[in-house]
Amino acid sequence: MKVLVIGAGGTVGGAAAAALKACGDEIVGASRSGDVRVDVDQPDSIEALFDAVGKVDAVVCAVGHVPFKPLAELTRSDYISGFEGKTLSQLDVVRIGTPYVNDGGSFTLTTGILAREPIRTAAVAAMANGAVESFVMAAAVDMPRGLRINAVSPTVLVESPKAHPLFPGYPQVPATDVGRAYVQTVHGHRSGFVVKLDGR
Amino acid sequence: MKVLVIGAGGTVGGAAAAALKACGDEIVGASRSGDVRVDVDQPDSIEALFDAVGKVDAVVCAVGHVPFKPLAELTRSDYISGFEGKTLSQLDVVRIGTPYVNDGGSFTLTTGILAREPIRTAAVAAMANGAVESFVMAAAVDMPRGLRINAVSPTVLVESPKAHPLFPGYPQVPATDVGRAYVQTVHGHRSGFVVKLDGR
Repeated sequence: MKVLVIGAGGTVGGAAAAALKACGDEIVGASRSGDVRVDVDQPDSIEALFDAVGKVDAVVCAVGHVPFKPLAELTRSDYISGFEGKTLSQLDVVRIGTPYVNDGGSFTLTTGILAREPIRTAAVAAMANGAVESFVMAAAVDMPRGLRINAVSPTVLVESPKAHPLFPGYPQVPATDVGRAYVQTVHGHRSGFVVKLDGR
Repeated sequence: MKVLVIGAGGTVGGAAAAALKACGDEIVGASRSGDVRVDVDQPDSIEALFDAVGKVDAVVCAVGHVPFKPLAELTRSDYISGFEGKTLSQLDVVRIGTPYVNDGGSFTLTTGILAREPIRTAAVAAMANGAVESFVMAAAVDMPRGLRINAVSPTVLVESPKAHPLFPGYPQVPATDVGRAYVQTVHGHRSGFVVKLDGR
């Protein structure tokens, strides 16, 4: 399969690319920097990426940025920023990328445990991830040409030590396990599903 | 208790107001039209509402509008519109209203079954509702002064026949049951919880 991995420069996207490559897939890795560039906050940039890459069998999207602040400090702009940075960007990848995915292909988006675990300062992350997870569930029944859509929703990665203090006592998941989850969604048959990796 | 019901002119908000009134609560019902007016799409209007109403013990928010279209017809503007109309509006009610809620009081937001059931044309509704449900879960651990926050998430109401064709074979829930759910969240003790009314 030819798989476009958007966010391949990140820990999660990199793990997805490595795991899919190990399965024999041809990987096109796109990120903010590197050979194949994309800024998913800009629909024009997403369009240009798909134009350049052409037809693919699967798209993995592992991108997103949201503000982390105590609830009392969150502004209206923070909520909008989180929606745009983590939700709308991934939905734009699906919306713009759909014509470029071969019949029977798939999209895999990326959310995270903050959609389901209450952590202070993470209300925007929760909102943005919850939005993507419900979208995936609903969009699955309306995808054309047998296309599938899923999400991978990991807990904090062993390889992301800066985020560990946010998750006291939470099991961590190794990047290799997260990578395998994308192999499940790309090579598997489910659609509308969120693969939850809670590390337990 | 003094309870501000935003969206009291709607079927769900009206049911919440009636059920709370039957419990002996003092209800201030606000809606787009009527005596106490608010347009939750406008933060200034929300601010003016709370200024006018003053301190309350609980806020019930039963508002929201999202576009319903086949996935292939959804534009970037539709996603933004759904986010603003159903998610951001309710988050603004919490953000702006928090100082007006007495210690130990509560917010109850409103989502719906489309957050968890895949229905064609409802991808934006799913996204917007999923966002609110995860927000409620996360915000609960960071509310000040013992304030609680929950959501009521009903399936289609018996009293909303126009929506029935969207839910073939789905059980319907009577408005009185939906109203009772708001009594649970306002007079109960849970926080960060989504009361799911699936009609079964």
